[in-house]
Order: sequence, then structure tokens, then C-alpha cells
Amino acid sequence: MPKNAFYAQSGGVTAVINASACGVIETARRHGDAIGKVYAGRNGIIGALTEDLIDTSEESDEAIAALRYTPSGAFGSCRYKLKGLEENRREYERLIEVFKAHDIGYFFYNGGGDSADTCHKVSQLSETLGYPIQAIHVPKTVDNDLPITDNCPGFGSVAKYIAVSTREASYDVRSMAKTSTQLFVLEVMGRHAGWIAAAGGLAADDTNDIPVVILFPEVEFDKDRFLARVKAAVDSHGYCTVVVSEGAHWPDGKFLAEQGTRDAFGHAQLGGAAPVVANMVKEALGYKFHWAVADYLQRAARHLASKTDVDQAYAMGKAAVELAVAGENAVMPTIDRTSNDPYAWEVGRAPLSEVANVEKFMPAEFISDDGFGITDACRQYLVPLIQGEDYPPYVNGMPSYVTLKNAGVARRLDSDFKP
Amino acid sequence: MPKNAFYAQSGGVTAVINASACGVIETARRHGDAIGKVYAGRNGIIGALTEDLIDTSEESDEAIAALRYTPSGAFGSCRYKLKGLEENRREYERLIEVFKAHDIGYFFYNGGGDSADTCHKVSQLSETLGYPIQAIHVPKTVDNDLPITDNCPGFGSVAKYIAVSTREASYDVRSMAKTSTQLFVLEVMGRHAGWIAAAGGLAADDTNDIPVVILFPEVEFDKDRFLARVKAAVDSHGYCTVVVSEGAHWPDGKFLAEQGTRDAFGHAQLGGAAPVVANMVKEALGYKFHWAVADYLQRAARHLASKTDVDQAYAMGKAAVELAVAGENAVMPTIDRTSNDPYAWEVGRAPLSEVANVEKFMPAEFISDDGFGITDACRQYLVPLIQGEDYPPYVNGMPSYVTLKNAGVARRLDSDFKP
Repeated sequence: MPKNAFYAQSGGVTAVINASACGVIETARRHGDAIGKVYAGRNGIIGALTEDLIDTSEESDEAIAALRYTPSGAFGSCRYKLKGLEENRREYERLIEVFKAHDIGYFFYNGGGDSADTCHKVSQLSETLGYPIQAIHVPKTVDNDLPITDNCPGFGSVAKYIAVSTREASYDVRSMAKTSTQLFVLEVMGRHAGWIAAAGGLAADDTNDIPVVILFPEVEFDKDRFLARVKAAVDSHGYCTVVVSEGAHWPDGKFLAEQGTRDAFGHAQLGGAAPVVANMVKEALGYKFHWAVADYLQRAARHLASKTDVDQAYAMGKAAVELAVAGENAVMPTIDRTSNDPYAWEVGRAPLSEVANVEKFMPAEFISDDGFGITDACRQYLVPLIQGEDYPPYVNGMPSYVTLKNAGVARRLDSDFKP
Repeated sequence: MPKNAFYAQSGGVTAVINASACGVIETARRHGDAIGKVYAGRNGIIGALTEDLIDTSEESDEAIAALRYTPSGAFGSCRYKLKGLEENRREYERLIEVFKAHDIGYFFYNGGGDSADTCHKVSQLSETLGYPIQAIHVPKTVDNDLPITDNCPGFGSVAKYIAVSTREASYDVRSMAKTSTQLFVLEVMGRHAGWIAAAGGLAADDTNDIPVVILFPEVEFDKDRFLARVKAAVDSHGYCTVVVSEGAHWPDGKFLAEQGTRDAFGHAQLGGAAPVVANMVKEALGYKFHWAVADYLQRAARHLASKTDVDQAYAMGKAAVELAVAGENAVMPTIDRTSNDPYAWEVGRAPLSEVANVEKFMPAEFISDDGFGITDACRQYLVPLIQGEDYPPYVNGMPSYVTLKNAGVARRLDSDFKP
């Protein structure tokens, strides 16, 4: 009898993490000789720890195919980081106990740096414990901060959303600038790395002349230089668009968003970086402003996904299963860029020992000298990742995303576990 | 020689106001016997007052066709309300002076209630002054608050954007609710009327079971009842999505957004209603939250426009010219719904005397008894308006919106005018 597989989604979900799930499950279904059932963790790794497994074999081929165009985490995800092996060996042992009880020989973990680390440790410990698990990490993160892989599934679609939204809102403020709004501020995700903020720079190209000022987390905020930059844009163009990363911060490390805002009870700030930046400009330069905070909208926007991103997310899930069937362990499939123009990529692989706990930041040569924009090198990197549209089907004016049955698997252990 | 036409965009722009411009200009080009050139006001009516006209005949047919899928106001818009005739007759006289100087016999004004009023007054005064202008109003407003017409061009696309975004973000929070975010709050436009907020209710339908709680400007905010409603949703579903109108307010009329927030200098609130509502729930019920403020993104989102809306926006522009050619004056084309299922509509007309300064609110029977949701009647009204997708063309991963040349018309008056 072939071993079963376990698949779990980890951390913040994306517009295309379910496309990876689709790649895993569809590919596993084609390898019935090597892989039995695919169980999914209900709410991520928590589902494994608590023996709360979902039997994906209960889902029709159509439902699994629909995952390709359904945003969010179809089985639920969680923010739960397993501690180090020494600190909490019990958690890892519990995972392996559950895997053993359900005859699971493959562990596909779909997430970012933390989950790559967990994946690696499970693989190591399972060997020590004499119940070998092939652990394969499936890359996912909107923050685009995993090493080795050229980019991370999830990022391309956020980048497209932010680039398009910034262009659209800039056209809007350009229309209004004569008598009304002159400043538009959009806050985007990315607490440590400015990849998403950089995508705002794609709003401007040679078809237009939109002045976009970007505040990266990689660049210490300099209020005077920032205000001068905004003023120059409004003087020359009549308006200015600012894309601010949630991670933008002062030289002392304090986030812009934390700028001492207090509610009526004296409680610390309610708002984000966008209103802080907008009000700062208003106070200094007097411009009327509007601001937006995209938050979950940006990472859930499957309606505007990048086709490249969807294809790559699916390919990573598919490759993970193929690597497992080929006997690999403790690896992650990667996206290897082989050409910029025309863009070409292929699937590679990286050992988890080199992936776990390494964060990839924006290279300095991707940020313009003044610190407020992107360079041509950055543009060459980003543009291929937003190529192509991959619209979901619509019914009655709305995207028809799938909600799975998520039938539970009967428990086989009588022990409880409190994560 | 046929008379020239003047076209201007007024107030907040939309994803489809340029589709109306496209309808006006393309139709005028087909009626060269009756209409000479179409001049556009640079930055709206300000362009007429200051004799800053754009010669649209300098634009190619291709550029004009591209207006159909380009959001924002291609000629610039403005927030400039002409005062009453008695208070500032000089402004109206100036308009007519400029129209006369450029041999303009048709005035197409594309906006909401205020511009319908201006349009009406120009028509009246021009007759008094012996230089008759045929003034036709072209309806536009995301707020959907014009009377007589079944709906307003611009609204359907915002509604689609909010409905889709609410669905997508709700799937996201549903994925995360077990260990992380349980509450998602989305702030939407609509200071007086809750039409846009109502569209958030379309996120849920019989394909899913999303708990959406709506805060309408039409319903006085009741904190205890709201918290109880959110708690019930989280108890039953594990999460809750709140759509809050920027116009949501306390019984004393104070907006939720104004809830006493102060910055470090004691200046009044920075934020919007969304962070206030999110923090209120957090404080009372302890739920982790995320919030978003869509702001301009919602009304500029041409990438997700409703095809029904685009078709209607174009049809209103086209009908305006046809009404003018047929000799009509002081009227507005309307969208007349003739059937709900299947949805059918035709172009009607309304006298401006009945349109100007009348605001249409949500009918009470569109809001559920508890005040937090939409009724079936509301759903039947809204669903047809978001039907169909009408994607812009993409080049290199980005929508290829047009930026016009906007060549100026030589001035013929030597008088200046300060609006």
C-alpha cells in the first residue's frame, strides 16, 4: 500500500496558495501507485498536532480544479510557529505520531521561512525516530522573502494588484488635482522587505508620467527629504502618489504608523502608516489628500491575479509531489529564472538547510539613488512576474470561488494535544 | 455651419465616466451635420469659466475609443459648485460668453446632482440672454443618489468592486480565524447614502455562508447591538466581516470616523471609520482584526468594472447627443429598468427640473430589520448592476489606459476670469 500524504497551509494566505494545493492534489491523484490519500491539516499544522485531518479524496476533481482560481486557504491556515527541537521536541514527536497513525509518509508544507524550518526539522527528527517522512516545502509568501528561488508564489499577484491599483488611483487623483485632491497615499504590506511597495513603481511607465514616491522599509525615513520630494512632484505634475510600506520607519526603528496617535482614552494609535503620511504632508504643504489601506484586499485579490504567478504556484505544488515520488527529502522546489527578455523560468530545487530562516531583502541596486523609487534593474525583475491575466469564472457578476466540503478523517489516537 | 459642443466632467471621477465621454464624442462624430467640434473643459467647468478648452477633434478615433476602458476623468474634473443664479449671475453669464465666443450650442455636463442643477440654470439663463444653449445632463455618480434614473453610471462598477473585494477578503479571514484574525473591517464610500455599503452584502450568497455585517449611514449606530451582532457571527462562523460606510454615524450625527482620535499634537483624527470600528470590537470582545480603507481604489477600479455599468455609461453619453440632435433641452437621459429577471433596461429621459438637487437614499425595505444587512429586494435591485465583466486590454501585465493629448483651443476672449 502506498503511503498517504499530508498537506498543510501556513501563515498568511494568498491569492494563489490554493493553486499550489491544486498542484499537489492533482499530481498526487495521478501518482496513485506511490501516494495514497492526501490529507490536509485543518487550519494548517494545528490540524496535524490535534489530529484534525481533512480527507481531500472526498472532494471531486472539479472542486480540486476550482482551487486553482480560489483565493485564501481552502483548508484553513494558521500562524503557529513550532519552536526549536530542543525547546519543544514534544511537538515534533506529536506530528510524527499523528503521521504514523495515519500511515503518512509525505509531508508537504506550504509556507514561508518558518514553515521551511519546521519542514526541515520534521524530516531530520523523523529519521532519528525511525519513521522516515519525506518532507517537501512548497514556497509561498506575498513578501517574496525566501532565498534561492527567484521569486515566491503569491508575490506576483500582489505586485500586479498594487501596480494596477496605484495606476488607477493615480489617474483618479490626476483628474481631481486642479481643485481638489493633490496627494494620494496607498499603504501596502511588507513589514521587513519592500518588494510589494516596489511594485507600486510599476504604475508609471512610458505610457504615462505618474509621479510615484515610494517609502521602503529598507530606507530610513527622512521627513525633510520626503516632503521636498513630494513638493517637487506636485510642482511639476500637479499631484503626487505615495506608496508607503507598512514597514516604513524612522531612523530609530519606530514605524511611521506608530506616530503617537492616541484615541480619546489615550490608547495608542488606531491607524496605519497611510493616514500618518498623508497628514504629515497636509500639515507641511497644505495639499488636500486621500489615502487607502489595501490590507487583505491586496493578497486576496484573485480577480486580478498574475497568470505567471498562478502558473508558478501550481508548478511548485506539482513539483513538490514529483520530487517526493522521485525519493527526495528535505527540499523545496524553486523558480529559476533563465531569461529576462523574453522571460523564461524553470523548476529547480533547493535543500531546506539553505532555505530555512534566511530572509531575502530588496538588493540596494533595486532602489533608486534618492531612495524613493525603483531602478531599471528592479523593473526588469518585477515586470515578468505580473505578466498575464488569469481571470476566475464569474457567475451572476461574482467570481465563483469554491468552498470545499472539508470532511474530517476519523481519529486513530486517543491522546489529546494542546498546541 | 453646425454649432460646436462643450463637454465637461464634474465632481468625483469614476471607473466609467470616460465611457460616457466616449459615447458623447463618438456619437457627435457621427452627427457632423448637426454638431461641429466637441470641446472639453480642462478640469471640468473651470475650463469653461477660464476659457481653457480642449479640442477633442485632435484625438484619434483610437484614442477616443480607448476612453471606454480608461478610468478617471480624461479631461480633468473639479469640485466647483456654481452658486445660485441670484447670488452669482456673473458666473453663468461668463459661461455663456465663452460658449458664444466658441460658437458652442450644446452643453453636455457629466456629473451628479449639483451639475444637473448647473446644467438646468445654464439652459434657462441662456434663453433669457438670447443665446440659446441646449443643455443636456449626463448622469454620473458612484453614490447612486440621482433621482428618476434606476441607477447611476459609476455605481455598478464600485458595487462590483466592493462585492468582490468583500468576498475575497472574507475567504482570507475565514482561513486565518482559528489562530489569528477573526474580524475584517472594510470601509467604503458613501457619506449620505448606503448604496455602496449595501453592495458588500453581495459577497455572501448561496455558494458560501459569509457573515457580513453592514453599517449604513441610513441607520443610527448602536454600539451594543453592533457588538452583539459581531459576537454572534464569530460564535457561529469563527469570524466576521464588517462593511462600514464612511457615513456611518452615532445618533447625534457624529461620524464613527470622528471618534475623538488625536495625534501627538492633539490634532483631530487621522483615521477613518474602519480602524475605529475594528478597535471598538477588539476592546469589547478581544478579537484580532485587520481593516482596509478602499478609498479611490474602489471608484478607479476599471480592471473590475461591471459590463452593465460600462454599457450604460456609454449609452448615457450617446443618448445625450441624440437628445441634443433631436432638439431637446434641459433634460437628462435615464436608465429605465423594465425587468428584473431577466434584467432589461432602456434609455429614458427626465426633465432637469425634476433631477436637480434631489437626493435618492436607500429605501427602508432594502435594509434588513436588524439594520445590519440587505434584503432580498435590495439584492434583486443590485445584482443586475454588477453583471458582466469588461476587462481593459493589458500590455506587459498592466492595463493600457489612454492619456489624451488634450490640446488647447486658442482663446478668443481677452478677459480673464477668476472662478
